Amino acid sequence: MLRIDGRSQSDLRPVKITRNYIKHAEGSVLIEMGDTKVICTATVDDKVPPFKKNSGEGWVTAEYSMLPRSTATRNQRDISRLKLNGRSQEIQRLIGRALRSVVNLNLLGEREIIIDCDVIQADGGTRTASITGGFVALVDACKKLVDEGIIEKIPVTDFLAAVSVGIVDDMEMLDLCYIEDSGAATDMNVVMTSKGEFIEIQATGEQSPFRKEQFSGLLSLAEKGIGQLIEIQKDVLGQVSNEVGRVTKDEKVCNCDEEQRKA
Amino acid sequence: MLRIDGRSQSDLRPVKITRNYIKHAEGSVLIEMGDTKVICTATVDDKVPPFKKNSGEGWVTAEYSMLPRSTATRNQRDISRLKLNGRSQEIQRLIGRALRSVVNLNLLGEREIIIDCDVIQADGGTRTASITGGFVALVDACKKLVDEGIIEKIPVTDFLAAVSVGIVDDMEMLDLCYIEDSGAATDMNVVMTSKGEFIEIQATGEQSPFRKEQFSGLLSLAEKGIGQLIEIQKDVLGQVSNEVGRVTKDEKVCNCDEEQRKA
Amino acid sequence: MLRIDGRSQSDLRPVKITRNYIKHAEGSVLIEMGDTKVICTATVDDKVPPFKKNSGEGWVTAEYSMLPRSTATRNQRDISRLKLNGRSQEIQRLIGRALRSVVNLNLLGEREIIIDCDVIQADGGTRTASITGGFVALVDACKKLVDEGIIEKIPVTDFLAAVSVGIVDDMEMLDLCYIEDSGAATDMNVVMTSKGEFIEIQATGEQSPFRKEQFSGLLSLAEKGIGQLIEIQKDVLGQVSNEVGRVTKDEKVCNCDEEQRKA
Amino acid sequence: MLRIDGRSQSDLRPVKITRNYIKHAEGSVLIEMGDTKVICTATVDDKVPPFKKNSGEGWVTAEYSMLPRSTATRNQRDISRLKLNGRSQEIQRLIGRALRSVVNLNLLGEREIIIDCDVIQADGGTRTASITGGFVALVDACKKLVDEGIIEKIPVTDFLAAVSVGIVDDMEMLDLCYIEDSGAATDMNVVMTSKGEFIEIQATGEQSPFRKEQFSGLLSLAEKGIGQLIEIQKDVLGQVSNEVGRVTKDEKVCNCDEEQRKA
Amino acid sequence: MLRIDGRSQSDLRPVKITRNYIKHAEGSVLIEMGDTKVICTATVDDKVPPFKKNSGEGWVTAEYSMLPRSTATRNQRDISRLKLNGRSQEIQRLIGRALRSVVNLNLLGEREIIIDCDVIQADGGTRTASITGGFVALVDACKKLVDEGIIEKIPVTDFLAAVSVGIVDDMEMLDLCYIEDSGAATDMNVVMTSKGEFIEIQATGEQSPFRKEQFSGLLSLAEKGIGQLIEIQKDVLGQVSNEVGRVTKDEKVCNCDEEQRKA
Amino acid sequence: MLRIDGRSQSDLRPVKITRNYIKHAEGSVLIEMGDTKVICTATVDDKVPPFKKNSGEGWVTAEYSMLPRSTATRNQRDISRLKLNGRSQEIQRLIGRALRSVVNLNLLGEREIIIDCDVIQADGGTRTASITGGFVALVDACKKLVDEGIIEKIPVTDFLAAVSVGIVDDMEMLDLCYIEDSGAATDMNVVMTSKGEFIEIQATGEQSPFRKEQFSGLLSLAEKGIGQLIEIQKDVLGQVSNEVGRVTKDEKVCNCDEEQRKA
Repeated sequence: MLRIDGRSQSDLRPVKITRNYIKHAEGSVLIEMGDTKVICTATVDDKVPPFKKNSGEGWVTAEYSMLPRSTATRNQRDISRLKLNGRSQEIQRLIGRALRSVVNLNLLGEREIIIDCDVIQADGGTRTASITGGFVALVDACKKLVDEGIIEKIPVTDFLAAVSVGIVDDMEMLDLCYIEDSGAATDMNVVMTSKGEFIEIQATGEQSPFRKEQFSGLLSLAEKGIGQLIEIQKDVLGQVSNEVGRVTKDEKVCNCDEEQRKA
Repeated sequence: MLRIDGRSQSDLRPVKITRNYIKHAEGSVLIEMGDTKVICTATVDDKVPPFKKNSGEGWVTAEYSMLPRSTATRNQRDISRLKLNGRSQEIQRLIGRALRSVVNLNLLGEREIIIDCDVIQADGGTRTASITGGFVALVDACKKLVDEGIIEKIPVTDFLAAVSVGIVDDMEMLDLCYIEDSGAATDMNVVMTSKGEFIEIQATGEQSPFRKEQFSGLLSLAEKGIGQLIEIQKDVLGQVSNEVGRVTKDEKVCNCDEEQRKA
Repeated sequence: MLRIDGRSQSDLRPVKITRNYIKHAEGSVLIEMGDTKVICTATVDDKVPPFKKNSGEGWVTAEYSMLPRSTATRNQRDISRLKLNGRSQEIQRLIGRALRSVVNLNLLGEREIIIDCDVIQADGGTRTASITGGFVALVDACKKLVDEGIIEKIPVTDFLAAVSVGIVDDMEMLDLCYIEDSGAATDMNVVMTSKGEFIEIQATGEQSPFRKEQFSGLLSLAEKGIGQLIEIQKDVLGQVSNEVGRVTKDEKVCNCDEEQRKA
Repeated sequence: MLRIDGRSQSDLRPVKITRNYIKHAEGSVLIEMGDTKVICTATVDDKVPPFKKNSGEGWVTAEYSMLPRSTATRNQRDISRLKLNGRSQEIQRLIGRALRSVVNLNLLGEREIIIDCDVIQADGGTRTASITGGFVALVDACKKLVDEGIIEKIPVTDFLAAVSVGIVDDMEMLDLCYIEDSGAATDMNVVMTSKGEFIEIQATGEQSPFRKEQFSGLLSLAEKGIGQLIEIQKDVLGQVSNEVGRVTKDEKVCNCDEEQRKA
Repeated sequence: MLRIDGRSQSDLRPVKITRNYIKHAEGSVLIEMGDTKVICTATVDDKVPPFKKNSGEGWVTAEYSMLPRSTATRNQRDISRLKLNGRSQEIQRLIGRALRSVVNLNLLGEREIIIDCDVIQADGGTRTASITGGFVALVDACKKLVDEGIIEKIPVTDFLAAVSVGIVDDMEMLDLCYIEDSGAATDMNVVMTSKGEFIEIQATGEQSPFRKEQFSGLLSLAEKGIGQLIEIQKDVLGQVSNEVGRVTKDEKVCNCDEEQRKA
Repeated sequence: MLRIDGRSQSDLRPVKITRNYIKHAEGSVLIEMGDTKVICTATVDDKVPPFKKNSGEGWVTAEYSMLPRSTATRNQRDISRLKLNGRSQEIQRLIGRALRSVVNLNLLGEREIIIDCDVIQADGGTRTASITGGFVALVDACKKLVDEGIIEKIPVTDFLAAVSVGIVDDMEMLDLCYIEDSGAATDMNVVMTSKGEFIEIQATGEQSPFRKEQFSGLLSLAEKGIGQLIEIQKDVLGQVSNEVGRVTKDEKVCNCDEEQRKA
């Protein structure tokens, strides 16, 4: 049996990543997964947050927001309510954690990369699309730092993408659209690297609880989907993709000069 | 002599209005004027603001915001500073006033149309692009109300568009891009209807004051540009454009039924 | 090999739940898990949030906060920064979702139960302690509604508790204290019912990614710990524990009178 | 035919500027235009805003607010709504821009002058009265800096005042009071220097659009009114008025000492 | 020995109360005590705060604020910091409590009187001046309600004024100006009625503690000062002063009509 | 005749102060006065507020808050309303002033001690309990600074405690519980040192005014109660209590080294 939009259980929606979408940003993409469209930009800032000052390390953070009319009914802007939406908070913390996990902060040096994910049109899976798209913007911003001679290597340890899976009408499905997501008994967001290692798994069964056995099938679906997404990332990054994953997380910058100066 | 991007003094940048850009909104466009790109959506809300309650009249309002990285350097989001940006405040008030001026609020009935203008990429003239694009989204939202039988006629009295003009290096220019705008001695935003009537003129000479005589030339440039923009609006609206301007501002809805009931 | 506080890998810290800790609240406990201490109160409110109005259903929500000096260094109060802490946001959303999953909102009727979780002293696992303790406060508040004849049965479908597990120094461990948590490669929070069904699983490998195989062991540890926590909940609830789990999630209130009136 | 308060079309209301109204401020006036009363104070601050740091230049900014009961119905204070009123935002940006346009920021040096305009009683034209009155406070604050030997010359390039004009019942009128303003088809605020150069023109036809031809008459009225207001400013400033306009906008401070030190 | 401004220990500064200072307000005064100047307006609102709804009783509340430059150094506006100043909070609660104590809320009926106290120029004693001046504005607003036939009698039970006293250089002094206040060892604000009954006494010895015996002398000074202030209030209220104090706090409105209707 | 809880007029409720209640804080107590329970922690911060920078002096400040369900009905958290509760503001300013009055800020040195008072359960007298308990936490934090060799002596000049007294049903009573407090005609909070000197007296007669004569009796009751509270403080502080009161307020640190360095 087919899904609402004719896909099979293990099909992703059509994915399109447009690089260099915003001319001002150090890295930027428009990622489209079906009708879900997110603009992800990467900004390099020379300052780090207070807790990283004089640590020699950089930081990667994310902000997530939806345009008021990206959804079926209009959302008031955060500034009108003077409160950052709780869901946005949760999501931007997830995006930041996920992307940070594949960045060697020492090689990045004392600078911050801010990934802004602005949802233009929402149809399910905006948080996972933000991670997948944000990764490409992040790599592009790092590439620019390398090209400008500011850092030596792209400090990204591996490819990383994310996808949602869930159980809808007792059927395991990959990459839920909004209607499927609303009706899902169990809903799971998975973040994974190209090596098949998991960075985050968030499974929620608010509608109805789930059992250990169901995990396995859902994780396999997610692995398949993320594998495809990483292929698309590599494709769109072209040559640059060869510069990703050349460093490990533990590798340190040699601060020879600086150390000599101090000595 | 040519301008920085090769245009003559009285040339608009390439203009493109994409209708129905966001599937959820009652009206929506992406307007591009050169590298300036703004998403304008129109939302119909069944409630009116408190000051219009039980007035029998509707309301039109606007919100304006820039994505953090729509500009050369990243802007903090309003919610991070807990303050609506002063410039955004000023601009969204202008957009609201401008669009309201061509709507018969009585024929609209007790409902509100909210025009959200979100700047995706900024290169000068975002406020005037928001007005020009917002107008098309507004008409589409009204058309939808007519098609659904909620109101009888599109309550828009005339076409309306806006453009910037200014004096740069002693030369009068139409539709300034960002670099021209930054260097302009005098900068003027003009909102006009298809009948050649002005709705707003805001001229500012912070860099250097201007004289009465200079007005005339600038206004003529603006008239020319707005005329072209209204042609583009008509083009993109196609058939619907014939339903604009069929009502006057004073026309009232006949509340026959209601009045009889009261009597 | 023993853990920092002498426990074995699969030991919970000493757990103590003190019922009726705050005299004013409809339900309240002090839950202590080792040095982690959280006051959980349950408040019954006659109003429901806007999105539940006239739905015939109730709502369960949670708020989570830490006293400024519950941690090693003082945290500024949220009100001083005018922003609800992002981590608190995320946690209170989790607590609310978890507790809601075992409440039949229809049997609760149009009222809201608010679970306030205030951390008095933090030493790891405050979010899972909040869920485990909040559950007891929730049951007590429901019991009070039953005793007052406002609802017929405690609308809680099953026992529910939560615990953290993680991999520290390549060793799987149950119920991490703060020092273990800071050094964990992988950290997982698990919410489960007495039937062994999962409500939420949140696994995060920011420090280092994890593999599918590692899941299984961690989940088993969590199951063991949650089983013990539910025993403690039953113990402390005494007689009342027999009234939990007597309803299903789908069961509906018979609105005979109301329906007749409408007919 | 006479206006509501007996004035002819081209009459200003009675204007009174009381200098040194607040003993603590570096400059301060109470300006009364008919029943409109605004307290304008000028404060000299040794710090400049971040974007002017180490620029060698100063800054002039303004804040505008109305006492809650300066109007016919009470306005909630901004702090009660936690939002700066949109209209106030727009107005204080205008006041700041206007006053800045006649200050040589280089001669002012790295310090900020803040003009606070607090409306005690409102009867139309509060923004233009704020500019006219704020100018006098600004000059007095600068004079104090000169008297204290901090700067050499009053860094104000010209006199500057503002007035409103409008079309009411098809009649062009100068200096609208509140009742006239509410009924105006077109409303225009004009800021001009003593040399007859315009700094800002804001014309708005929300009620009904206006035509090019109408401009000329309105601008002439404004010129007449501003001329009279500048006479009153000169009068009230007495001797000090001779020290205004002795510098141009381009003139630079000779930083001989500093440059030598650097060399 | 004389005080800094030549007064004796038990002298008030020159007091001037200008009635009907703001034309829009139901009651308004400018009160000047030496260089301290406060505008107090009284606004009648037809709504009461939520906790008084359907109580049949009214409410009296106060808001207190200082203009940014009412003090020697400029204070940032509350809205700039998004926080109501702690001192203002404390003071406006005091003013509200004090004025409420002499109003029969039942006779006032379900309406709220808001006393806005805006300090134009501060030189010590602004909170007590606000109470003394606010009282006159309150009476005028009540008088207006009586004149319009909305209530039958002015619902004010007694005259009420306030003054500060303190110990400076071991000397008891009445009505401290700012310099005296800053140097005071003990500082006391006293609110009293014309019957010599105390409403509030706030004594603070942050600089140095005080002894029981010192109270008596300070209270006598305050009684003397408040007696004089009440004479000034009576003077300025003229005829109206005879209508104050004709009701007691317990007196109830006869709701005959309403009760009959209900019956 | 006995009081509601069987006490005589001059009885305190049972008082219990538990020291070292929170393991992370430099000083911390749980103070219980009857059913009123407050957690007071003292945090030492190396920074001082801006107005104390480079003054050589330290600062003591307080924050006061109630858990949402410390009261009979739930209070919304401040952060939900984005406003610090007015009553909390007033109270925390009082606590700070009171504790500061017995600290030699010069001997404390440039550091800040923050006293957090969080009400766990409220039954009247929370502000006075906060002062009494906060004092013990303050002393413990200072003791720690001495033990660590950071300062030489505990910079606390005297013991200090606070209690409420009031007139209920024409009877003077000590230490009002919530029911008594709500029904009190006059309510007075008294802060006193062990030498019998007053730091703050706040008497309020909103319900009904009071006369000079009534003071004396109430103050005597307060003196008796505070005497007992100070005995309890000494008891719980044990040995440490001997180190309190060994300095005066005027005593200065000898900055010999620093002065020599400067010379």
